[in-house]
Amino acid sequence: MRIDSSARGVYVIAPTPFLADGSVDVPSIDRMVDFYLECGATGITVMGQMGEAPKLDEQEAVEIASRVIRRSTVPVIVGVSAPGFAAMRSLSRTVMNAGAAGVMIAPPVQLRTDDQIVTYYRQAAEAIGADVPFVIQDYPLTFTVVMTPGVIRRIVNENGSCVMLKHEDWPGLEKISTLRGFEHDGSMRHISILCGNGGLFLDFEVERGADGAMTGYCFPEMLVDVVRLTAAGQRDAAHEIFNAHLPLVRYEQQAGIGLAVRKYVMMRRGILSSDAQRKPAVALSAQAKEEVEYLLSRIARVDKRAGLAPLGAATKA
Amino acid sequence: MRIDSSARGVYVIAPTPFLADGSVDVPSIDRMVDFYLECGATGITVMGQMGEAPKLDEQEAVEIASRVIRRSTVPVIVGVSAPGFAAMRSLSRTVMNAGAAGVMIAPPVQLRTDDQIVTYYRQAAEAIGADVPFVIQDYPLTFTVVMTPGVIRRIVNENGSCVMLKHEDWPGLEKISTLRGFEHDGSMRHISILCGNGGLFLDFEVERGADGAMTGYCFPEMLVDVVRLTAAGQRDAAHEIFNAHLPLVRYEQQAGIGLAVRKYVMMRRGILSSDAQRKPAVALSAQAKEEVEYLLSRIARVDKRAGLAPLGAATKA
Amino acid sequence: MRIDSSARGVYVIAPTPFLADGSVDVPSIDRMVDFYLECGATGITVMGQMGEAPKLDEQEAVEIASRVIRRSTVPVIVGVSAPGFAAMRSLSRTVMNAGAAGVMIAPPVQLRTDDQIVTYYRQAAEAIGADVPFVIQDYPLTFTVVMTPGVIRRIVNENGSCVMLKHEDWPGLEKISTLRGFEHDGSMRHISILCGNGGLFLDFEVERGADGAMTGYCFPEMLVDVVRLTAAGQRDAAHEIFNAHLPLVRYEQQAGIGLAVRKYVMMRRGILSSDAQRKPAVALSAQAKEEVEYLLSRIARVDKRAGLAPLGAATKA
Amino acid sequence: MRIDSSARGVYVIAPTPFLADGSVDVPSIDRMVDFYLECGATGITVMGQMGEAPKLDEQEAVEIASRVIRRSTVPVIVGVSAPGFAAMRSLSRTVMNAGAAGVMIAPPVQLRTDDQIVTYYRQAAEAIGADVPFVIQDYPLTFTVVMTPGVIRRIVNENGSCVMLKHEDWPGLEKISTLRGFEHDGSMRHISILCGNGGLFLDFEVERGADGAMTGYCFPEMLVDVVRLTAAGQRDAAHEIFNAHLPLVRYEQQAGIGLAVRKYVMMRRGILSSDAQRKPAVALSAQAKEEVEYLLSRIARVDKRAGLAPLGAATKA
Repeated sequence: MRIDSSARGVYVIAPTPFLADGSVDVPSIDRMVDFYLECGATGITVMGQMGEAPKLDEQEAVEIASRVIRRSTVPVIVGVSAPGFAAMRSLSRTVMNAGAAGVMIAPPVQLRTDDQIVTYYRQAAEAIGADVPFVIQDYPLTFTVVMTPGVIRRIVNENGSCVMLKHEDWPGLEKISTLRGFEHDGSMRHISILCGNGGLFLDFEVERGADGAMTGYCFPEMLVDVVRLTAAGQRDAAHEIFNAHLPLVRYEQQAGIGLAVRKYVMMRRGILSSDAQRKPAVALSAQAKEEVEYLLSRIARVDKRAGLAPLGAATKA
Repeated sequence: MRIDSSARGVYVIAPTPFLADGSVDVPSIDRMVDFYLECGATGITVMGQMGEAPKLDEQEAVEIASRVIRRSTVPVIVGVSAPGFAAMRSLSRTVMNAGAAGVMIAPPVQLRTDDQIVTYYRQAAEAIGADVPFVIQDYPLTFTVVMTPGVIRRIVNENGSCVMLKHEDWPGLEKISTLRGFEHDGSMRHISILCGNGGLFLDFEVERGADGAMTGYCFPEMLVDVVRLTAAGQRDAAHEIFNAHLPLVRYEQQAGIGLAVRKYVMMRRGILSSDAQRKPAVALSAQAKEEVEYLLSRIARVDKRAGLAPLGAATKA
Repeated sequence: MRIDSSARGVYVIAPTPFLADGSVDVPSIDRMVDFYLECGATGITVMGQMGEAPKLDEQEAVEIASRVIRRSTVPVIVGVSAPGFAAMRSLSRTVMNAGAAGVMIAPPVQLRTDDQIVTYYRQAAEAIGADVPFVIQDYPLTFTVVMTPGVIRRIVNENGSCVMLKHEDWPGLEKISTLRGFEHDGSMRHISILCGNGGLFLDFEVERGADGAMTGYCFPEMLVDVVRLTAAGQRDAAHEIFNAHLPLVRYEQQAGIGLAVRKYVMMRRGILSSDAQRKPAVALSAQAKEEVEYLLSRIARVDKRAGLAPLGAATKA
Repeated sequence: MRIDSSARGVYVIAPTPFLADGSVDVPSIDRMVDFYLECGATGITVMGQMGEAPKLDEQEAVEIASRVIRRSTVPVIVGVSAPGFAAMRSLSRTVMNAGAAGVMIAPPVQLRTDDQIVTYYRQAAEAIGADVPFVIQDYPLTFTVVMTPGVIRRIVNENGSCVMLKHEDWPGLEKISTLRGFEHDGSMRHISILCGNGGLFLDFEVERGADGAMTGYCFPEMLVDVVRLTAAGQRDAAHEIFNAHLPLVRYEQQAGIGLAVRKYVMMRRGILSSDAQRKPAVALSAQAKEEVEYLLSRIARVDKRAGLAPLGAATKA
C-alpha cells in the first residue's frame, strides 16, 4: 500500500504519546490509531513536525512508526527530514521495509533560490530511491524556505516519485488555485494536495481544489466532516461545523504551545493517557488550560462529539 | 493630548485611502476617521505596517497624518519606523508638532541579541526626544526580532517615554500574563498593552490583562464590543460576538492580501470609495472576493451591523 | 555624464566625514574627493552601506551628494535604497537633477524567491524612471537576498537602464565567470561588473572578467594598481601589491568595525580631519588601533605611499 | 584523555577522506592523522562543519571517529550537533566510550534570544551527561545565532562541563578581549578559546588571548607556527609566516567551495589520495584549480614546506 497522486481525505498528523516519565506510551499509540480510524482518517502521518521526532532516538522512532503501520488499515506516511541525505536514506529504507506508504521531506532552512530548492529535492529523491513515493512539505513560516508554484511544478515534473504536497504556505489559497491551474493547462501532472496549518484555512482550501487535510487538530472528525461536506456540495454545512471549531483550531495553532494544547485535549477525550511531552517541552499554564476548557465547552454546544470523557478514562480503558 | 500608560480601548490602525489612479483619496480619509469615532475607537494609529507608508513620500505622509489628527477627537499615534535615526527624529518632530499623541517604533530586522534590542530603543528614545511618548511594536512574525518579557521590562524601565506595547507576538497570551506579573511584583512600571495580529486572539488577550486592541480589522466595532463586554465581565457575550467574526478576522490575517481584504470590506461598507492600493500591490482574485462576500453574509446573520451598503455608496455620500 | 555598461576601473565608496560633535565635516569632503581623483578613481559612490546614509536626514544627504558631484571630475553614483518606492523615486530624481551619474539599489531583506527579486527590480526601475541608469547591489552576506546568475540575467534583460552590478556575493568568482559566459553565449547583454567586499578577492575577480572595484578600502590606490596591472597582463606584480595590503584589507572587512578602521586610516593619512562617526557608532578600542598601526607599518615596508601623514595634518592643510 | 579548560595549541578540523566512488578512504584517514601529528597538532576534531558529517550514516560516522581516536596520540573532539537531544546523547555516549576527549555542540538556527541560547546549552549538557566535556561552537555567520560575551559567560558558569569555546564570531577580536576580561574580573571561570574561521584572524586572535586555533586550513603547520611564535613573543615572525599564507587562507574561506580547495591541496600534498567529496558536492572549476596552484606557487617562495608532492604520491605511498 503506497500513496500515489490520487490520495484524498484526511491524513492525521499523529503526536507521539509519552508517559510522565518520558517513556513511550505504547497503549496510547494503539488507542490513538484506532481513534483516527474511527474518525474516518484516510491516512496517518508520523514523525512530522508535531511528532517530537527529534526527541526520539532512531530505534525508538522506527519502533513507533512500525507499531502504527502494523495497526493501521490506512496508509502511513513517515517524516524523514534529516540534516543529511545519508540519514534520510537510511531511515526511508527502514520504514518503507516496515510497510510505510511513503515519506515526507521538509526543505532545510538554508535554501534560498529557486534552483537550490529544486536541486535539493532532486538529490533527496535520488537518495531515498526512485521507488519511494514522497511528499513535499511546504511550510515557509517554520522553515523560512519559500517555494513558488513554479518551483513546485519543477519538482513535480522532475521527480516521478513526488506524489503529494503538504500545503502549509500562508497565505496559500491562491497557491492551490495556481497549482490546479498548472494541471488544467497541462504544464504539471496531477498531485495530491493535503493542507496543514492546523486546518486554519481548510474550509476554503478544499473549495479551491485541495484534496483534503494533513494536520493533527485534536478533533480530526471535524476535518473529515469539512472534506466530506464540501465534496458533497454542502457548503453551508461545511462552514457551520468548521466555524464551531475555529476558535480552538486557532488556539491550537499557537507556535510552541500548540502541541501541548493538542495533547491536553486528546487526554481529555480519553485517547492519550497523559498529555506529557518528552523534554524539552513547554507546559500549559493553569490559565491556558482554563481557556482550552472554555473553548471545549463552547464547541460542545454545537458538536456533540465534543462531550469529553471523564478524566482518567484512557488509563481505565 | 498625548498618550500615556493609562491608554485603553481600541486604537484602530488606519489604512491610507487611495483612488484607482494612485492618488490619495482625501474625502475617504475624513469619512474613515468619522467612522472610527462612531465605532467607539479610543485612538487611531496611522502609518503602521498596514498604512502603505513606504509608498508615500514624506510630504504626503505628513499631510495625511495631519489631516487625521485635525479631524480626530481621540489621540492619534503615528508610525515613525525608519532605516535610521535621522529620518525617525525628523518625522517624529514634524508629526508631534502637528498634534500627534505619540509615535510607534518597530525594531529593525537585523537585531538579534537582548542587548542589541535594548540599545536600539534607548537610542531611538534619545533620537526622538524624551518628551515624545512612544510605543514598542513587538511583532516577531514580520520583523524576526524576538523580545522576551525581560527585554521589554528593560526597555520600559530605561525609558520613561515608553508608555505602550503594541503586542503582536504569536503566541502571546503568556507574555501578557508575564508582563502583568512584572507589574504586580513591582519590577516594571505599568504600561498600556494593546494587541495586534488583526485581533486573532483578542478574546483571550483582554482576559489576560491587555488594555485593548491596536489593529485594523474591518469591523472595529467588534473589537470595541469585545473589550467592553470583557471589561463588564460578560465573557460569553464577548466570545459570542468575537466568534461570529473570527472566520473573517482569520481571513484578513493572511499576509500579503490582508490589506486588500480590509480595504475591500471597507469599500463594501461605504467607508472607502475605492479598495485601491498604491503600487506595488496584490489584488484580490475573483474567487477571493467571493470568499469574502460569503464570510460577510455569514457574519450578517449574527451581527446586523454587517449589512453592507450598496456598492458605490461611498462615492455618492 | 551618466554611467553606462562600459564603466571600468575603481569607483571608490566614499564615507561621510563628520566632526567629533556629529556635524558634517565639509572641508574633509572636498579633500577626500580630491584624494580619490589623485588616486586614479574612475568614479565615486556616495550613500552606500559604508556612507552612514541612514544617519543623515534627506536634506543633508542631498547636500553632501551634491557637493561631491560638483567637485568630482568623474561620475558619481548615489545609493538610493529605501523602504519604499516613493522615497526611492524622490531621492533619485533629486540627485539625478543635481548631476549624479546613476543610482545604486540594494534588495530589501524580505525578498526570497527568484520572481520576488526580479519583480522588485522591475518595480524599482519603473519607479525611478527608465532614463536613470542603475546599479544592482548583490550583497547576500548583509542583505540575506541570494541572486543566482540567472536572476541577474533576467533583471538585466528586462531593464535597459540596468548598467552595472556591484558584485559582492561571497564566494563570487564563479559567478563572474558565469555572467561573462552569459554574455559570450549571447543570452545577456554586457554590463559593467565592479566588485565590493572591501576588495578581499579583487586579485582574482579582475582575472575572472570583472571591470574593476567599487569599494572603499582606505588605500584606493592599491585597488587602482591591481586593476591596471592585471589589465596590462602583469599578474605577479598585481598580486605582489595586493598581497602587501591583504592583511589590512581583511582587517577592514570586519563587520561593524570596518568603517571605524577605514576612517581611522583616512585620518592618519591626512584625508579626514577626524575619524568620528555619527551616533550610533562603535569606536575602535586602543588595542584595535595598535593593530591597525602595526598593519600600516608592515605595509609601509612594501608600499611607500603608506608612509603616514603626521597626526593632525588634515586639520592644518 | 579528556579535554579541559587548559587546552592550547592547534586542534585541526579533519575532513573525511573519500574515494571517487563515494566510499570512505580508510588509508587516507590514517595518513591524515599521522600528518596532523607531524605538523604539531595538539588535538584533532572530527565531524565538524567541514567533515561532511551529514553525508555519513551513523555507523560510518562512529567508525571514522573511532579510527581517528585509536590512531591519534592527541585528544580527539567529535562534533555531535543534532536536530534533537536524543540523537545528540546517543552519539555522544558512543564516541566517548570509543575514547573521544570531548564533544562539540553548535546551536540550532532557530535560537534567537539570550535565554533561548542559555537554555539550549543547559539542556544539551544535561542530555549528554555532566561528565562529558563540551565545546561551544560560536559561528553566527553560518548558524545565524548571535551569542554575546554575557551569554557565553552564563553558559560557562552554569555548566561545569563546558570547557572550551570554538570562537568563530566575525568580527571577534573584541569578543576574545571581553571574555578574557571576564576571567580577570572574576565573573567567569577560565575556558580554552580556540579560533576558527579558517584562521583568517589567527594572527591577532592569539595576541588577544586566544589559546590557539581549531580549524582545518590545508597547512596546519602554519597555524602551529603562528601560535608558537606568538607565545614566544616573536610578533614579526608570526605575522611573516601568517601573511605568506593569508592569500590562500582567504581563498579557502569561500563558503561552499572551501572544502573543495582544502581537499585539493591536501591531495596535492600527498595526504589524501583523492579530493573527492561525497555527493552532493561542488567541484572546483579548472580556473579555480589554476588559482589555487598559483597561490601555492607563491607560498612556496616563502615557506619551503609548500613544495608539493608529485601528483599521485599519496596513492603510491
